[in-house]
Amino acid sequence: MDSTQLTSLLESVARGSVPVDLAAHSIGTATADLGFARLDLHRDLRCGFPEAVLASGKSVEDCVAIAAAFVARDVRMLITRVSDAQAAALRCAVPDGVWHERARIFARDKAPLCAAGLVVICAAGTSDLGVADEAAVTAAACGARVELCYDVGVAGLHRIEPVLPLLREANAVVAVAGMEGALPSVLGGLIDRPLIAVPTSVGYGTSFGGIAALLAMLNSCAAGVTVTNIDNGFGAGCAAARINRLVAGRGTHGS
Amino acid sequence: MDSTQLTSLLESVARGSVPVDLAAHSIGTATADLGFARLDLHRDLRCGFPEAVLASGKSVEDCVAIAAAFVARDVRMLITRVSDAQAAALRCAVPDGVWHERARIFARDKAPLCAAGLVVICAAGTSDLGVADEAAVTAAACGARVELCYDVGVAGLHRIEPVLPLLREANAVVAVAGMEGALPSVLGGLIDRPLIAVPTSVGYGTSFGGIAALLAMLNSCAAGVTVTNIDNGFGAGCAAARINRLVAGRGTHGS
Amino acid sequence: MDSTQLTSLLESVARGSVPVDLAAHSIGTATADLGFARLDLHRDLRCGFPEAVLASGKSVEDCVAIAAAFVARDVRMLITRVSDAQAAALRCAVPDGVWHERARIFARDKAPLCAAGLVVICAAGTSDLGVADEAAVTAAACGARVELCYDVGVAGLHRIEPVLPLLREANAVVAVAGMEGALPSVLGGLIDRPLIAVPTSVGYGTSFGGIAALLAMLNSCAAGVTVTNIDNGFGAGCAAARINRLVAGRGTHGS
Amino acid sequence: MDSTQLTSLLESVARGSVPVDLAAHSIGTATADLGFARLDLHRDLRCGFPEAVLASGKSVEDCVAIAAAFVARDVRMLITRVSDAQAAALRCAVPDGVWHERARIFARDKAPLCAAGLVVICAAGTSDLGVADEAAVTAAACGARVELCYDVGVAGLHRIEPVLPLLREANAVVAVAGMEGALPSVLGGLIDRPLIAVPTSVGYGTSFGGIAALLAMLNSCAAGVTVTNIDNGFGAGCAAARINRLVAGRGTHGS
Amino acid sequence: MDSTQLTSLLESVARGSVPVDLAAHSIGTATADLGFARLDLHRDLRCGFPEAVLASGKSVEDCVAIAAAFVARDVRMLITRVSDAQAAALRCAVPDGVWHERARIFARDKAPLCAAGLVVICAAGTSDLGVADEAAVTAAACGARVELCYDVGVAGLHRIEPVLPLLREANAVVAVAGMEGALPSVLGGLIDRPLIAVPTSVGYGTSFGGIAALLAMLNSCAAGVTVTNIDNGFGAGCAAARINRLVAGRGTHGS
Amino acid sequence: MDSTQLTSLLESVARGSVPVDLAAHSIGTATADLGFARLDLHRDLRCGFPEAVLASGKSVEDCVAIAAAFVARDVRMLITRVSDAQAAALRCAVPDGVWHERARIFARDKAPLCAAGLVVICAAGTSDLGVADEAAVTAAACGARVELCYDVGVAGLHRIEPVLPLLREANAVVAVAGMEGALPSVLGGLIDRPLIAVPTSVGYGTSFGGIAALLAMLNSCAAGVTVTNIDNGFGAGCAAARINRLVAGRGTHGS
Amino acid sequence: MDSTQLTSLLESVARGSVPVDLAAHSIGTATADLGFARLDLHRDLRCGFPEAVLASGKSVEDCVAIAAAFVARDVRMLITRVSDAQAAALRCAVPDGVWHERARIFARDKAPLCAAGLVVICAAGTSDLGVADEAAVTAAACGARVELCYDVGVAGLHRIEPVLPLLREANAVVAVAGMEGALPSVLGGLIDRPLIAVPTSVGYGTSFGGIAALLAMLNSCAAGVTVTNIDNGFGAGCAAARINRLVAGRGTHGS
Amino acid sequence: MDSTQLTSLLESVARGSVPVDLAAHSIGTATADLGFARLDLHRDLRCGFPEAVLASGKSVEDCVAIAAAFVARDVRMLITRVSDAQAAALRCAVPDGVWHERARIFARDKAPLCAAGLVVICAAGTSDLGVADEAAVTAAACGARVELCYDVGVAGLHRIEPVLPLLREANAVVAVAGMEGALPSVLGGLIDRPLIAVPTSVGYGTSFGGIAALLAMLNSCAAGVTVTNIDNGFGAGCAAARINRLVAGRGTHGS
Repeated sequence: MDSTQLTSLLESVARGSVPVDLAAHSIGTATADLGFARLDLHRDLRCGFPEAVLASGKSVEDCVAIAAAFVARDVRMLITRVSDAQAAALRCAVPDGVWHERARIFARDKAPLCAAGLVVICAAGTSDLGVADEAAVTAAACGARVELCYDVGVAGLHRIEPVLPLLREANAVVAVAGMEGALPSVLGGLIDRPLIAVPTSVGYGTSFGGIAALLAMLNSCAAGVTVTNIDNGFGAGCAAARINRLVAGRGTHGS
Repeated sequence: MDSTQLTSLLESVARGSVPVDLAAHSIGTATADLGFARLDLHRDLRCGFPEAVLASGKSVEDCVAIAAAFVARDVRMLITRVSDAQAAALRCAVPDGVWHERARIFARDKAPLCAAGLVVICAAGTSDLGVADEAAVTAAACGARVELCYDVGVAGLHRIEPVLPLLREANAVVAVAGMEGALPSVLGGLIDRPLIAVPTSVGYGTSFGGIAALLAMLNSCAAGVTVTNIDNGFGAGCAAARINRLVAGRGTHGS
Repeated sequence: MDSTQLTSLLESVARGSVPVDLAAHSIGTATADLGFARLDLHRDLRCGFPEAVLASGKSVEDCVAIAAAFVARDVRMLITRVSDAQAAALRCAVPDGVWHERARIFARDKAPLCAAGLVVICAAGTSDLGVADEAAVTAAACGARVELCYDVGVAGLHRIEPVLPLLREANAVVAVAGMEGALPSVLGGLIDRPLIAVPTSVGYGTSFGGIAALLAMLNSCAAGVTVTNIDNGFGAGCAAARINRLVAGRGTHGS
Repeated sequence: MDSTQLTSLLESVARGSVPVDLAAHSIGTATADLGFARLDLHRDLRCGFPEAVLASGKSVEDCVAIAAAFVARDVRMLITRVSDAQAAALRCAVPDGVWHERARIFARDKAPLCAAGLVVICAAGTSDLGVADEAAVTAAACGARVELCYDVGVAGLHRIEPVLPLLREANAVVAVAGMEGALPSVLGGLIDRPLIAVPTSVGYGTSFGGIAALLAMLNSCAAGVTVTNIDNGFGAGCAAARINRLVAGRGTHGS
Repeated sequence: MDSTQLTSLLESVARGSVPVDLAAHSIGTATADLGFARLDLHRDLRCGFPEAVLASGKSVEDCVAIAAAFVARDVRMLITRVSDAQAAALRCAVPDGVWHERARIFARDKAPLCAAGLVVICAAGTSDLGVADEAAVTAAACGARVELCYDVGVAGLHRIEPVLPLLREANAVVAVAGMEGALPSVLGGLIDRPLIAVPTSVGYGTSFGGIAALLAMLNSCAAGVTVTNIDNGFGAGCAAARINRLVAGRGTHGS
Repeated sequence: MDSTQLTSLLESVARGSVPVDLAAHSIGTATADLGFARLDLHRDLRCGFPEAVLASGKSVEDCVAIAAAFVARDVRMLITRVSDAQAAALRCAVPDGVWHERARIFARDKAPLCAAGLVVICAAGTSDLGVADEAAVTAAACGARVELCYDVGVAGLHRIEPVLPLLREANAVVAVAGMEGALPSVLGGLIDRPLIAVPTSVGYGTSFGGIAALLAMLNSCAAGVTVTNIDNGFGAGCAAARINRLVAGRGTHGS
Repeated sequence: MDSTQLTSLLESVARGSVPVDLAAHSIGTATADLGFARLDLHRDLRCGFPEAVLASGKSVEDCVAIAAAFVARDVRMLITRVSDAQAAALRCAVPDGVWHERARIFARDKAPLCAAGLVVICAAGTSDLGVADEAAVTAAACGARVELCYDVGVAGLHRIEPVLPLLREANAVVAVAGMEGALPSVLGGLIDRPLIAVPTSVGYGTSFGGIAALLAMLNSCAAGVTVTNIDNGFGAGCAAARINRLVAGRGTHGS
Repeated sequence: MDSTQLTSLLESVARGSVPVDLAAHSIGTATADLGFARLDLHRDLRCGFPEAVLASGKSVEDCVAIAAAFVARDVRMLITRVSDAQAAALRCAVPDGVWHERARIFARDKAPLCAAGLVVICAAGTSDLGVADEAAVTAAACGARVELCYDVGVAGLHRIEPVLPLLREANAVVAVAGMEGALPSVLGGLIDRPLIAVPTSVGYGTSFGGIAALLAMLNSCAAGVTVTNIDNGFGAGCAAARINRLVAGRGTHGS
């Protein structure tokens, strides 16, 4: 139920054509109450992507129960940071779900989306690939066409040059890097596309689990770079999808 | 000089139609050497917005010299974080420049841009207005139509409701907040537009000059929120402009 | 032994009706010396709730010995953060004790308390339920009637609305949240009841084990929110009980 | 406008007895729009105390404009962290306002409240008195009878003993301390009343502007202590008032 | 070899009565070279206590080799932070060594010291006992008579009173506490003896592994409290021993 | 009033030879109530040194009022961290007081103490002299004979050698250093005397106002070094005095 | 391919003697694309040492695939932070590789380098030896003659004296230390050679995993000390090699 | 007096050709005692550069007294971080000294050094020039030929290309950058020369006074980069000089 529908419903209440209790019930059922969790079934309509469930910190049983609730209501589902044990159980319980191992995402679409609009994900090092994949799977689940570039580190600038044409075609670019996190600064000076930086916890000592990369990205001298939480590939994928949807399909507020 | 021009120039070098030294000079003059600074005159072409000069930490004389260099080459100019003393000198030296006091920006356009595409800036509290204005002036300088909403704090949810329709029309929304920085989390659950969060240094004690707000924004449970440095209205304005330009004018990669 | 009893005892000493050594012994036995620990048996009288024993960091043997000492003196007992191994041993040793698994509390009442006065515990996400339960069991052990609301997150405001009437009846509200910790700010602007915020360590990256939520809560723009240590459901339960007892039973200092 | 009034108004809309636009206007005027700020005029009804305005970071002109708006609507007003210059201007503009110098608060009541219920504020050292006063003035403005105890430091326990009887009568106790912040731990073991700890920025070196005291208070081994932001006397006063109001006047949910 | 011996040796070199190479060899053999470590065999003479070996981070083989080197030269030996595996091997290799389990120390004296001078160790909670024991064993190994007081926490002041007479007899008092670390502040206001504070990593959340206690101790309002590293019972024992030796045996510089 | 006197007084109460109210008054007057502060007049008897008053953060008027109260009761007085304005007023108000400019201490003795027992203060650099002087004046005020050594830095080991004989005679050594704070580690390996390390805020960048030096001192590989707060010369002087008093004058618990 | 070759190739393109696509291919093959990683095969030519591969965070399969790629192209190879499982697999797959266990490095040279120029590695304690070895193996792999000195701690200055002559012969000295990290400060005042400090994570409590040592080294009062990341023996070895190569072999820019 | 001279002197003592007291005096006068400071007059001989005096935190009088002591003994002198007031006084007192305003250094050479060996200093932004100049003046004072490159930021890679040939000729390169500090990572991948990174405090918000840049540099993915304290141009200049001296003049340990 999105904003327009809600307004319309309230106007019906004012007109008397919809009784108060019915309207209340209709809005109330936007959440599915599992006894220990309330799923936000209208998130997709309201925000443009399904409520993602963070599996880490949940029991295997809770994960399966939540997945079953989504399946029962036939809405799109994205479960992130899934452990091996959780994945095994989910694959049994939801045979038509898809398991993205490197991204640690278990997903199920009610119907395949038609991919539209390009999102490019760049990973600075091989160890950043898990986070990059989380971003890629998320953006694809939100309807984007996704390309992934790996090992695009700043200590070897000649590895960046070949991917520039691709970056300059993208509706949104996601730059994933750990250690000193310099990739977004270098890319930000070379392209004019929306650029989302994702610091990763790759590194040791004073990388402080990704803080060094995070600070570098927040202080980027390349203007217009925005940043997500450390290792938050999911968030970056959603942010890219928010942009891509506008450019690819609904770009109608331009004048 | 943008990417296409650069490629074309290099091909001319390969064909022999442009000699090596001429090409080198042409590329070389993309920077203006002031003896203590090298201005990046092609930033606008490459990244879509002019090189902004951070006035803080520079002498009044250096600011004026830099401004004069931009005027002499007739390129767009955006000087941020300008002190009162710097502003006074700039207004003398560049009479056709514009002084945005609350935003602390001194700007000069070679020609007025035609505003296209809506960017909305939301400020949680009155003390966040300076940063919000910096974002607004920057986005406008990059060609966006800008609306500013103030005092949209989460401790009074009824103040958020009236601005939702406007937010749902925007190509990009910038949410500016200090203290606990909860505004983007609340907005992020209500709209599906690209959402850029700017933490401000408003607060005291454990706000730690904006760190509390920054962390809240990075950890937002609303998916797809991205974040800038503390008080970085300029960066948020640029990021919004990167998105807005794509949606408003060049939205051609959608299929 | 509470303050009045102590004063009375000292006056008896002054009158000579109680000899010094007897008085010293009487005060001395307020603690039970186990050879490695001294239990504070008068805590309940002095502060209104039993001395809770933090099990984490103690051996199974020490936990059982401490529990036995409480049982032997027939005082109320609350053991928190109990591991599975400790729980198994305690259930054998104290058959009439109660094991609250999700809250990780092992408790024993000498007599059931009559629940009086409402305390409401709100948990923002499913992963915050353990901490919320610790608060709920603690408050109930101190004599409150407790209601628990789950999945009341700020990214879906429509999930907060239905619980407002309950919150507005409570003598104290405990708001439990991880990640950006925005729940208390939103609730604090909607209700006028005492509001205790508990940050949890739920999150990753820059949540820094609950610091992001803690800072957000300390900087809440909603006035009158107070905060406990990270994951400190026990402390929040005690704080709510301190308030509830006054309102429900001893509200006699009002004029 | 509080929750009951809002519900009633919405039911009238559903019945058709109040038109939608009139209801919208009625709710809309709960905020006073000053062009740069929106005052929350219903905060008092909703939360039990007036919207306090934080003066720090605002210009003298803005402070006066905000004060004038409150006076014009004849609602209670509390302006905190007022500088000398702001105070001078406010005293001219609002002659019937009251200037609390040590607390840095400028206040105006439409009518004197009848003080009911005791709140006690304890300050560990002389340098903590400003913060303690801010708490005292705030609690009094919310209708409490307030007593202030000073120089109650833990390095001289004999200074704590004399004030215990007063503390044991209070509906809420606020303990204000800088440096090592041990006062709440000692008090928390001696009384059973609600206890709110306020760390102050008093100290040097590793006091880190109050962080040492804050951490000590959050980790207090005395159960049921809750904490506010550093130097946040206003917040502690509001929290004490939330409790005191329930105990002193509305203690009706006890059974 | 202590300072006097060294001076005397160098004077012999100047006189020609000791050749340069012999003197060099004599000084050189103050260290035992094990191929991967150089033991400081003169530490005892120079500083008044044996070189303690930190076992953590060393292999079982290295620990045994080091112990064997000490035994071969028949000097006193103190190995701290010994794991269970290391302890088992050391007990086999050095049958006349002593294993202090709770303190995690393996020690061997060439001859029993005659204990002189009282050192008192106070532990705030049961979980602080391991660190307190490390201090106690160390101080005893340096020749002090040691008393240990447990469960002397500030939330129950009546538990402190009984031990005050003992504390007032001590040449040095070591106060061990985790969580808010308030014990030294309270003791420091009650006694005039040298007082060494040891923060422990006991606690959770914002105790940050002992930082909260450390900061509280460094900021103690009780003058003359000094502090060691977190969990550093060994260091506190050495510091107490440095003081005790002067008072108990060499107190000859008093006038 | 010290511990023995207090015990004796309470026994008199028990015997009936002293009435309760008289005893209460006698204990009560141990503090001087100035209306905004309560001076601890018995600190000297209880802890061996006068209550020092921290001037920073107090008004000139308060400082003078406190000083007058000490003079009126003719007890020893030590006011630390005195500003120039405070010093000027104190020198007028207390003509027989002594102003130690570099140490920023204003002091007054009722009678000159007979200096007994040697305390040595070492300062690593010239910029550490202010803190070193604060320690020296404090220790002297507590009855010690004090020697000050300056510019004893570790980057020039030949400057340390000449002072070793003096250090080896001291009852307590205070080592004051900023920057990397290595002095105590080097001294701690060369002498067997009690050694108190004081980190100073001298340095820049990552010295973080003394944190680098503090951490180095807490982690000293020289066993038995204890540490005070950053820049806390006063605390170090008190700690040295606690030790020196025992060694120089009361060394009677040695067997 | 180094800078000179690159320039020459581009000039050939301009002359037309090398076609654009051939040049592009030639530059492009400087990286070996493994499908998940792109190895930088020209790093050795460009920077003077081979691209080192950080094994931690990579699967055993990826490590072996990367090693095979290096072997196939017969370039020098250095794999660092190798786990036991990775080492076992690498030793099977690359029989002529060398496994340095303590340094956790697996290496393979296409041809033995002739060692030239002395690099000395000093380790403060036995626990620092792993990091010191990583530096030593790396420097040797880059062509230096390497000497390792162990147990050179500042708490026993007599252990430093014997190694000074060796240090004064070195082209570069690497000082490895944990805990308070004072070794570089002491060495820096005694020798005039390039001095690289490596903080290690050896220590506990406030050593904060090496931060204490890092800060001490960054704040060293000995001028001209530079620092690497915590535990970064590899980086220090490379830095020493950068210096040593210039001194030992290419010292031709001296006038 | 350097190491060789010291050894020779001690041998003379052993032979009896130099009496003990004379040798002691000779070594003793290596420091000039000013009553509050001891200047290290042999630093130049021992470490290769003069003892630099940090002016910040010293009074004008002390600065002048120190300068006079250097002049009187006719040794080289380098006073850093000189304020305007200190500079004015020094220029009067030492007319043949040289005042480097941007570098804030006051220097005096007894005789001009013959510059040998190239050191290049790169500054990322105009605001980094002060720190870069401090490095340049220091390196020149130690005998290097110095070149300074400015505005070599990573967001405009075309500004780096032109300076690469110069960098590849240097004996040492110093890279000075604030904000995200990415410059050394980019340079480190392009050149094989010794590379010293200097983070500056340029930036705002999460630059945290240079911490962001420092962390980026410590975590550089370009191997062999070493780092100095924030804003420590002096230290970087010394480090470059230590290297340059070896390469340019004493490169004799190469085989």
